[in-house]
Amino acid sequence: MEQSFLAYLRGRTRNLPSVAVGIGDDAAVLNFPGTPEFPSTPESPATPDSADTPCLQQVACTDQIIDGVDFRSDSQPLASIGYKSIAINLSDIAAMGATPTAALVTLTLPSLNATEIAGEVYEGILEACAEFNVAVAGGDLSTYDGPLAISVTLLGTVTAPWLRTGAKEGDAIFVSGSLGGSLSGRHLRPIPRIELANRLRQHVNVNAAIDVSDGFSLDLDRMLASSRVGAELNIEQIPISDAAHAMSKDSNRSPLEHAWSDGEDFELIFTVDESDAAALEELSADDLSVNVTRVGSVVGRTGLWKRITGSKLERVFPQGYVHGETDE
Amino acid sequence: MEQSFLAYLRGRTRNLPSVAVGIGDDAAVLNFPGTPEFPSTPESPATPDSADTPCLQQVACTDQIIDGVDFRSDSQPLASIGYKSIAINLSDIAAMGATPTAALVTLTLPSLNATEIAGEVYEGILEACAEFNVAVAGGDLSTYDGPLAISVTLLGTVTAPWLRTGAKEGDAIFVSGSLGGSLSGRHLRPIPRIELANRLRQHVNVNAAIDVSDGFSLDLDRMLASSRVGAELNIEQIPISDAAHAMSKDSNRSPLEHAWSDGEDFELIFTVDESDAAALEELSADDLSVNVTRVGSVVGRTGLWKRITGSKLERVFPQGYVHGETDE
Repeated sequence: MEQSFLAYLRGRTRNLPSVAVGIGDDAAVLNFPGTPEFPSTPESPATPDSADTPCLQQVACTDQIIDGVDFRSDSQPLASIGYKSIAINLSDIAAMGATPTAALVTLTLPSLNATEIAGEVYEGILEACAEFNVAVAGGDLSTYDGPLAISVTLLGTVTAPWLRTGAKEGDAIFVSGSLGGSLSGRHLRPIPRIELANRLRQHVNVNAAIDVSDGFSLDLDRMLASSRVGAELNIEQIPISDAAHAMSKDSNRSPLEHAWSDGEDFELIFTVDESDAAALEELSADDLSVNVTRVGSVVGRTGLWKRITGSKLERVFPQGYVHGETDE
Repeated sequence: MEQSFLAYLRGRTRNLPSVAVGIGDDAAVLNFPGTPEFPSTPESPATPDSADTPCLQQVACTDQIIDGVDFRSDSQPLASIGYKSIAINLSDIAAMGATPTAALVTLTLPSLNATEIAGEVYEGILEACAEFNVAVAGGDLSTYDGPLAISVTLLGTVTAPWLRTGAKEGDAIFVSGSLGGSLSGRHLRPIPRIELANRLRQHVNVNAAIDVSDGFSLDLDRMLASSRVGAELNIEQIPISDAAHAMSKDSNRSPLEHAWSDGEDFELIFTVDESDAAALEELSADDLSVNVTRVGSVVGRTGLWKRITGSKLERVFPQGYVHGETDE
């Protein structure tokens, strides 16, 4: 349901001058008062020269996880689930090239043992917030007759956010880390690529970015579709994780299939100009906090493609976790 | 559970320079980058003279409502419930004296008829957002085996926010509108006092404010306790709604008891200096968008008090809806 409903919502939601980017990217982008795009106020008049330079903007995203849908409290530690609820939102902040500042946390708790559950979940929430220098600035707590749900809103700041719409024909496509097999354990303590985003900003201009939440090929396809372009991929360059290799032994799927379609990697896919691609390939994993791998180039033709021989391209199809696919 | 758990959280949550007011008020207050309290960045250096004037700050609050706990989808229209989910958050924004800008909406939907429910709820959400000039900037949608839950995060801006901690001995205490009996119908379409907050800013300095969500006396007591002061109330001045009178006929409780303790009025309680109180009493309901009534004065002694005869004060006790009171 989610994608079609979001399309409906985008059509229904009015554009206000305070909102630079609304529904449809990893996070919303809001203009701070006093910037040229924002109605000026007596307290914060827009300055005449501020139209020339990109302004600092605010980003905000929200993501919820629910027991029995997104995690299983009977087999996973509550503290890890709390950690994950922050980390997945930080991943969206990283995908905007932004710096996180504060979180608002809403816990919906089963009536039985509500206080104990809240305490354990918060251990992980506070751990993640300390690690990434995020303040828990507010939230809400409810008890009800239902499963544990954790909804987090993360706020941050950014100058010139990385949008899904920014990929251009000729861009090089990179992905961080290695892909696939996250569900064998890594997904509970994902590393949101906040530090990578920070380092990338020091070295190159990122044209477009998205984080891998539903599957590498699916999220890549989403980003490129937003930019109205496609990709020619070097499939053999896709970085496959050890976990994907291990999982492949019992899954009847190849390690590449895991890397191609498994969800919850929380790595970054991003595109840069060809000149920046050369600069990036000179940098080490130490320079960037994690290795990044070039996996292809942006092409004008939409869709994902791989080269067979010479000039012959074959279409390859995105796969991954589609939210609400089983609904109705 | 909520109050004690929030106290625990306040103790555990680190203070970061970006957070001016964290857990414990109607909304969090965040400093915009470039203000004196915020670490300056190359993009937004703090200006030398900005320490003298109050800076524009950001406010953020979040509040969730759940079917079977906070509303009943079998007897209340889904559009009204959607409207309410925005309005109750706007009430918190108004209680900070702030202006709303954008909302992030998380819907947790029963699997059966998820799309239909989401559509009806959004009718009310979009109606409230249009009425109060708020953009729906993002959100999340999930389906699960549980009751409908709507979690809204509202963002806004403010200069010199109205905090619960700002009441001073000698202040006059006012309340907007009339109180009690909200559950007979008004609670589904509450009027968040955004316009009143805006008008008050043009006429007076508000020292402290809170919105009535759990009951007039309970929320008044909370605000004054945060300020470490108390109140001498003119009980007979408390504005009682028609709905409280009507409800009293069947409830075995007086109209005043309803006004004193009923939740979900979403009126504003606020305090001003005595000189501003005189100015306020000159203004009409038209000037302020709603009538405001003086109900007492702030005193140094904590607690709520009423005058019996001469100098004799008698303590009166706050009552209302305490979240999680039945929990464990």
